[in-house]
Amino acid sequence: MIRDLIIKNRSYRRFFEEVAIERRTLRELVDLARMSASAGNCQPLKYIISCEPQKNALIFPHLAWAGYLEDWPGPCEGERPAAYIIILGDTKVSKSFGCDHGIAAQSILLGATEKGLGGCIVGSVQRAKLAKALNIPSVYEILLVLALGKPRETVVIERVAPRGDIKYWRDSESVHHVPKRSLDDIIVG
Amino acid sequence: MIRDLIIKNRSYRRFFEEVAIERRTLRELVDLARMSASAGNCQPLKYIISCEPQKNALIFPHLAWAGYLEDWPGPCEGERPAAYIIILGDTKVSKSFGCDHGIAAQSILLGATEKGLGGCIVGSVQRAKLAKALNIPSVYEILLVLALGKPRETVVIERVAPRGDIKYWRDSESVHHVPKRSLDDIIVG
Repeated sequence: MIRDLIIKNRSYRRFFEEVAIERRTLRELVDLARMSASAGNCQPLKYIISCEPQKNALIFPHLAWAGYLEDWPGPCEGERPAAYIIILGDTKVSKSFGCDHGIAAQSILLGATEKGLGGCIVGSVQRAKLAKALNIPSVYEILLVLALGKPRETVVIERVAPRGDIKYWRDSESVHHVPKRSLDDIIVG
Repeated sequence: MIRDLIIKNRSYRRFFEEVAIERRTLRELVDLARMSASAGNCQPLKYIISCEPQKNALIFPHLAWAGYLEDWPGPCEGERPAAYIIILGDTKVSKSFGCDHGIAAQSILLGATEKGLGGCIVGSVQRAKLAKALNIPSVYEILLVLALGKPRETVVIERVAPRGDIKYWRDSESVHHVPKRSLDDIIVG
């Protein structure tokens, strides 16, 4: 059931870093994005994949993690992503990418979830530094970085509290709580 | 398998309009979007759902269909969507929506596909006219309209031809062909 997969597909930020992900697996995930919808069928997205520790180490320093957890600088060594898929916008194909990268990211993460993996869509990226680290040609705009691995944390969905705070938080057991608005709050007509 | 669902989830533009979709079904689909990722967990999206012929008739005239099929003005009566989910950005919550609506749209359409339905993400919308027709408060930005129904056409994926044209086309049997770039064309590193 897609519903089960969507519920299981949480944003994970701590991983069993030693559980490697093969390049073939990442290609299968990108293939899911390839067959997903694209505005005007333009297909302006390109992808960089990484599953080698050396390449991963070039990517990790340029990502920001979990803005609401002020005391947590991001995953420590051993808990970092085992792989990445970087979604690029090819400005030779289009100057705007609409929400194509959202569609693609969701397809990839649902595919990862089905394989027992998990990940996080990272939008807070030091783009210029990452482009330099990986020698990404300037014709490509960095849209999103998907961090992937075997999840090493528990994430639970809960209701937005009465005062309406949507900030996720971690309890003393390191369980990550994500408040979601109710269905009746978001259907307005 | 998510791969099968993603392949089956094509953009359908002709439907068995007489096959109604219940409001409950639309709420289930929005619930899939509700539990999907949102940048910073802000959840700025709101939704309007429609499955009544009168309300559908207020929406349909403000949508543009299949830009590449110049001789086809859109689905005729009897082949029009049986329902719609309009994705709004709530500017009280956020001024920018990133690609949240892409993530939400993909969750909704995969859910619809699993239920034997299909749809199309319509981004070419006469927004001011639609807002007026449905009395949508100006605090909401219309992001996307998802047209839904029981598909009445065959859509096939094929390889982009050597000259690289990504325009979809319809053959003499009204089969809709969608050229997709190859995996090796889109993985650039």
